[in-house]
Amino acid sequence: MEATHSIGIVSAQRAQFNSPLACKSGGILPEYELVYETYGSLNRDKSNAVLVCHALSGHHHVAGYYADAPKNIGWWDNMIGPGKPLDTDRFFVIGLNNLGGCHGSTGPISINPETGKPYGAGFPFVTVEDWVESQARLADKLGITQFAAIIGGSLGGMQALQWSMAYPGRVRHVLAIASAPRLTAQNIAFNDVARNAILTDPDFHGGNYYAHGVVPARGLRLARMLGHITYLSNDVMADKFGRMLRSGKYIYSYDIEFEIESYLRYQGDKFATYFDANSYLLMTKALDYFDPAREFDDDLNKAFATARANFLIVSFSTDWRFAPERSRDIVKALLHNQLKVSYAEITSTHGHDSFLMRHAHYHDLIRTYFNNIASEFTA
Amino acid sequence: MEATHSIGIVSAQRAQFNSPLACKSGGILPEYELVYETYGSLNRDKSNAVLVCHALSGHHHVAGYYADAPKNIGWWDNMIGPGKPLDTDRFFVIGLNNLGGCHGSTGPISINPETGKPYGAGFPFVTVEDWVESQARLADKLGITQFAAIIGGSLGGMQALQWSMAYPGRVRHVLAIASAPRLTAQNIAFNDVARNAILTDPDFHGGNYYAHGVVPARGLRLARMLGHITYLSNDVMADKFGRMLRSGKYIYSYDIEFEIESYLRYQGDKFATYFDANSYLLMTKALDYFDPAREFDDDLNKAFATARANFLIVSFSTDWRFAPERSRDIVKALLHNQLKVSYAEITSTHGHDSFLMRHAHYHDLIRTYFNNIASEFTA
Repeated sequence: MEATHSIGIVSAQRAQFNSPLACKSGGILPEYELVYETYGSLNRDKSNAVLVCHALSGHHHVAGYYADAPKNIGWWDNMIGPGKPLDTDRFFVIGLNNLGGCHGSTGPISINPETGKPYGAGFPFVTVEDWVESQARLADKLGITQFAAIIGGSLGGMQALQWSMAYPGRVRHVLAIASAPRLTAQNIAFNDVARNAILTDPDFHGGNYYAHGVVPARGLRLARMLGHITYLSNDVMADKFGRMLRSGKYIYSYDIEFEIESYLRYQGDKFATYFDANSYLLMTKALDYFDPAREFDDDLNKAFATARANFLIVSFSTDWRFAPERSRDIVKALLHNQLKVSYAEITSTHGHDSFLMRHAHYHDLIRTYFNNIASEFTA
Repeated sequence: MEATHSIGIVSAQRAQFNSPLACKSGGILPEYELVYETYGSLNRDKSNAVLVCHALSGHHHVAGYYADAPKNIGWWDNMIGPGKPLDTDRFFVIGLNNLGGCHGSTGPISINPETGKPYGAGFPFVTVEDWVESQARLADKLGITQFAAIIGGSLGGMQALQWSMAYPGRVRHVLAIASAPRLTAQNIAFNDVARNAILTDPDFHGGNYYAHGVVPARGLRLARMLGHITYLSNDVMADKFGRMLRSGKYIYSYDIEFEIESYLRYQGDKFATYFDANSYLLMTKALDYFDPAREFDDDLNKAFATARANFLIVSFSTDWRFAPERSRDIVKALLHNQLKVSYAEITSTHGHDSFLMRHAHYHDLIRTYFNNIASEFTA
């Protein structure tokens, strides 16, 4: 029997940090807030905490829904809840919005205390390393010295991997899903096109569009349209949309002709109404910058030399954004360091987006892995 | 010994057509001009003519160079010339700029005789079928009743295929390289993002930017940047650029950090200075519309039922824009109709752009195929 119970009504919490965060980019955040949610209960010895790291456009609302917005369901609700693969009856789950985001944590839209105006383009470049540092401080505040597991997909997986390197004593299990040890040139290229769409939008105003009462919606829309192409596989696009025409025939117009155009434009338009352009730029740069091997002569083996966690690495067969080969690169480096690692390549037609989908084999895998983790502290 | 001789100095010619062209879209061009170049000599029985069809951003200047611009070398000069794979000592080669283009043939930038102003957004949507019709009229004018061969890569290959269906008696050999019988949803998606970059550029002015003294350079630049990602393979991007940094270290800026960004932005900037945005839109729509199976219940076998030519179909192993599978779809339909077809999948790292590259195996293949064609009329 598949459990489909929701964790139910949840609410966001805030944590204020008054000691400065020195970012890897050289920028300093004198103070900052993190918005987060928690599900389930922390056990007595605080050994059942799981941190969920989000990807490009994710946030702290990972599971459940809000009392005043019952349709606003967390982005990984199919994975997390009572009886779900990451079972909130057994684990204490934390989701947060990363620094630089636009869902409540301190970001470009926040007021810079030094100027009294939004940070805008002045928000420091943030990296995966900075996020992990800020997440560790949040863990300190919650009294969690060691996570049972840290899990993330895509950019979230990079954060989980970074934890294993930066805080080897603070995480027992790392689950990196549809992730990569660093971006390829093609990945960076797509990010750069998306960024240039925003940067060259006349409404961007060098990142200080807030003062002009506009947002670079055209740029954000294009960035999201392009992003969606890379999240889906060629196959699933062919299956879902193919060459289906909206009106059954060619209309010879730049309006929507093909259903795939309708889908992309809808996704782009929606995104442009709620996502902050400066946050989008920062998140894509954080992706580009992540490269733990870089400080070790491009040797990923050395980068993982400090890691002590156990790992589950998961990839999806049709993911061409972060292809299975990239996950295997991670696995090889972990094995080189004689770490315990399980690897699964899930056959799925959904491309990179597979990590967010309900998929029996994939969910069984995550469920089993967490069951094993639970047996460590309930035994 | 590899022949590297250029055809030398060439010059463009013009042909005026005064009978209207009724486009498949319903639009009508009351009159039009085609600009073209020819290389080599038409033999006495006019049996050695080869038509070269161009792709998205190509034109009539296929080989050689201009007396007043010796560095302006034709886009397929490595393939066409004396002693080259398509040998101008034996063949009479014609290249033209397609209708709707921006290199001299009638297009959006041309004056609409009915209004005295540029066609702009009022230029009819043109299709591969329309281009073939206009090419046939040019052939009439040149006294060519049957081509020895028609060759093209990518969108050019689609025109070559269309010739075999529309004018089975007028072409003996069709060479369709890095082509496809129709675009996939993913192909259309990339085109739609590129088009939306142009359409939403405030300088586009609904396609009538000429009257405003501006061009939608930001949109064109983005379209070209995105295009280039799809022309190259993931592998060649990794080999040529990888994660190479322009200044050897992270600069934490939206300026160029990675060499791949420098390459893409340079290509985008260059393109925006010379290519007409309305032409770009029309060319991408022509790509989207081409689908000969559509009028035959999506049965490509039926679409080729009228064809009588012999075929050489060529694909490239790392071409993910028009993948080898798409070429094999063509081959299967040709075989179903018991046509003579040769197929080669060339191992090349260069992705879709391979068809433009000097590559020994590929060029040997084309050379041998044309040698065999030449033996038909010289024997």
